[in-house]
Amino acid sequence: MADVVHLRKEDAAGLVLKERADAVLRLTLRNPPANVLSIALMEALASALDEAAADNSVHVVVLASTGNLFSAGHDLKEMTAHRSDADGGRAFFEKTMRLCADLMLKIASLPKPVIAEIDGLATAAGCQLVATADLAICTDTSTFCTPGVNIGLFCSTPMVAVTRAAHPKQAMEMLLTGETIDASTAKDFGLVNRIVPKQYLRQVVDKYASVIASKSPEAIRIGKAAYRAQAGLPLPEAYDKAVATMVENMLRDDAKEGIGAFLGKRMPEWKAD
Amino acid sequence: MADVVHLRKEDAAGLVLKERADAVLRLTLRNPPANVLSIALMEALASALDEAAADNSVHVVVLASTGNLFSAGHDLKEMTAHRSDADGGRAFFEKTMRLCADLMLKIASLPKPVIAEIDGLATAAGCQLVATADLAICTDTSTFCTPGVNIGLFCSTPMVAVTRAAHPKQAMEMLLTGETIDASTAKDFGLVNRIVPKQYLRQVVDKYASVIASKSPEAIRIGKAAYRAQAGLPLPEAYDKAVATMVENMLRDDAKEGIGAFLGKRMPEWKAD
Amino acid sequence: MADVVHLRKEDAAGLVLKERADAVLRLTLRNPPANVLSIALMEALASALDEAAADNSVHVVVLASTGNLFSAGHDLKEMTAHRSDADGGRAFFEKTMRLCADLMLKIASLPKPVIAEIDGLATAAGCQLVATADLAICTDTSTFCTPGVNIGLFCSTPMVAVTRAAHPKQAMEMLLTGETIDASTAKDFGLVNRIVPKQYLRQVVDKYASVIASKSPEAIRIGKAAYRAQAGLPLPEAYDKAVATMVENMLRDDAKEGIGAFLGKRMPEWKAD
Repeated sequence: MADVVHLRKEDAAGLVLKERADAVLRLTLRNPPANVLSIALMEALASALDEAAADNSVHVVVLASTGNLFSAGHDLKEMTAHRSDADGGRAFFEKTMRLCADLMLKIASLPKPVIAEIDGLATAAGCQLVATADLAICTDTSTFCTPGVNIGLFCSTPMVAVTRAAHPKQAMEMLLTGETIDASTAKDFGLVNRIVPKQYLRQVVDKYASVIASKSPEAIRIGKAAYRAQAGLPLPEAYDKAVATMVENMLRDDAKEGIGAFLGKRMPEWKAD
Repeated sequence: MADVVHLRKEDAAGLVLKERADAVLRLTLRNPPANVLSIALMEALASALDEAAADNSVHVVVLASTGNLFSAGHDLKEMTAHRSDADGGRAFFEKTMRLCADLMLKIASLPKPVIAEIDGLATAAGCQLVATADLAICTDTSTFCTPGVNIGLFCSTPMVAVTRAAHPKQAMEMLLTGETIDASTAKDFGLVNRIVPKQYLRQVVDKYASVIASKSPEAIRIGKAAYRAQAGLPLPEAYDKAVATMVENMLRDDAKEGIGAFLGKRMPEWKAD
Repeated sequence: MADVVHLRKEDAAGLVLKERADAVLRLTLRNPPANVLSIALMEALASALDEAAADNSVHVVVLASTGNLFSAGHDLKEMTAHRSDADGGRAFFEKTMRLCADLMLKIASLPKPVIAEIDGLATAAGCQLVATADLAICTDTSTFCTPGVNIGLFCSTPMVAVTRAAHPKQAMEMLLTGETIDASTAKDFGLVNRIVPKQYLRQVVDKYASVIASKSPEAIRIGKAAYRAQAGLPLPEAYDKAVATMVENMLRDDAKEGIGAFLGKRMPEWKAD
């Protein structure tokens, strides 16, 4: 376990607040009123995730946001302003969409778990962040939608995440109607893991984070990579990959220590960061 | 939005009733008593879907049926009659199964949403139609099954659709036991989106259809194609496709109009059909 | 249907009890106190499944276990003992993991359904057995977990099965926290099909088994193979495979008999084993 540290800093523009407590890094989106994913915010968040990936003392990342909108997705004003570019905005739209997809892929491949903490509305790419996080915990008044059809811009990139989290008909209902679902429906769909009253949100997220942070970070890094490596493969190929992973994992120090501790009925001590 | 039109016509054999109201095309199976998917009915339905695909004024297709059986699947009498063919029926069975699979693929790739409206039993390829539709709304007395095991003919083609709509164990319970599930279980499984009392079925389906018909048909066409293009791909490749789709979508008239309307707090006016 | 037989035997080491009643083969793990999957138990179970695959009179396999732990997964003592091997255990770990993956693949590709009957805790590779079985029925006090993170060994091979049974976020909650879920949550996740009070467990499993055993074994064999062949394929390719399967199935004796019986309103008589 990392030494206890209490850092609190933010990027130059103040768009992403970074707070550390023990091995948990909390990243809070601060782009009021709707925490839209402007280029600046996406770059700040990507940079914070890169730092987290490289810092062995971070075991878990929590992704939260300020205000009563988790995130409203892309910054439509910023995008619209570029319609007057010589290319009608194509280059800027490509930059925006690529940056956003890379951000989602970064979360998916981050070698430590990402827990989304949601209080309020998560829409479009904001809903995609929720769907992409490894775990998601929300308040009972949180709501979710992919409303691109309302503005002539189908939520095709959020769809990638939402259709992998939920059943196709459930995802298509969100995508085709653009309507908002409540927290309970989101849990039924598989978009969130747990619903809590607002006053307990932080406490429950902290509990999840500290439980996961107490596990072997090495084992979790191995496992998260293994999940991505086998996802969607035919069963025999998926097992080939997972078998190789298990053998390598067994030969690592933390497995030796963890299994030894289990058999010896004592608490394990994971390798120093 | 298309001009208001009220057409009511049927194919030569009267197997599929076509009704238009505004931008919604309603196709009703009329092959009593069980709405079996005979060659003639499948050809009539495929033809109606081809027309719908080509008609820009159709934004949404509703697939309903008459009587208290949504559809009992293949026409076993028709198939059995061909056992006396010189080839034991092989060519006819190939024609039947190919036609049926092509019908399902046509629904899946139709550039407009298909809503299944179910009242009663949907069985075998009838259940496959429900699983294949983008959305499904049923009465609270509707039931669903894939009972091929009861007649020595495993529901292998329905399985393709059912295992993509529901979790594997849930699909296998239907396929291996052949037993009938109720509407509530079907909703839990992800086979239907919504259950309504019989007296409200038409009203709720019409509401869903008109909500979706009011969106940009261009965006929906783009999105439905994007869904098929990325389904099952590894995450990075899925995002490559979706990013390209989003950029193209942003450059279309409806996205320009829709985003402009949103930012200007007015209702969008989609491009004429 | 097979002749009624009542066999009761076990492997040399007594690790897997084999019981036959009619066409149902019941395999019971007997490796107290935790039914760990030692090399000997995995080999005995694999051998019993091979026999079942080759015996046409077996239509359904039930996989149960003695005591109040369904299975605690790998034999950690056995594995730890091999850390003193010249290669640090690598060869033994490879043998163990390959044997386990092959056992899961054997269940998945067995040409007859496997029903897991669970009473108690199913953990790690024990939970993987549940996720891998075609159907799973458990008592209301059964629990499930993939707790590898607690011992520094991420449940990467169980993950292959669990992420194919449940939604990703649900699977990741089990895998990242290592916490135990109850029977009701397991049913919501898609890990089990049905929950019953302990006193009815055997009766309900027997009922499922006899219902499935009464179907055409030929059709079920064709269907189970067809499921594996199309899983994860793009929709058009999946339908190509399923169409070919349906045509071949239609030309088999049991489909002829089954459809004839259905149209003639009589009970079918399946081909002798």
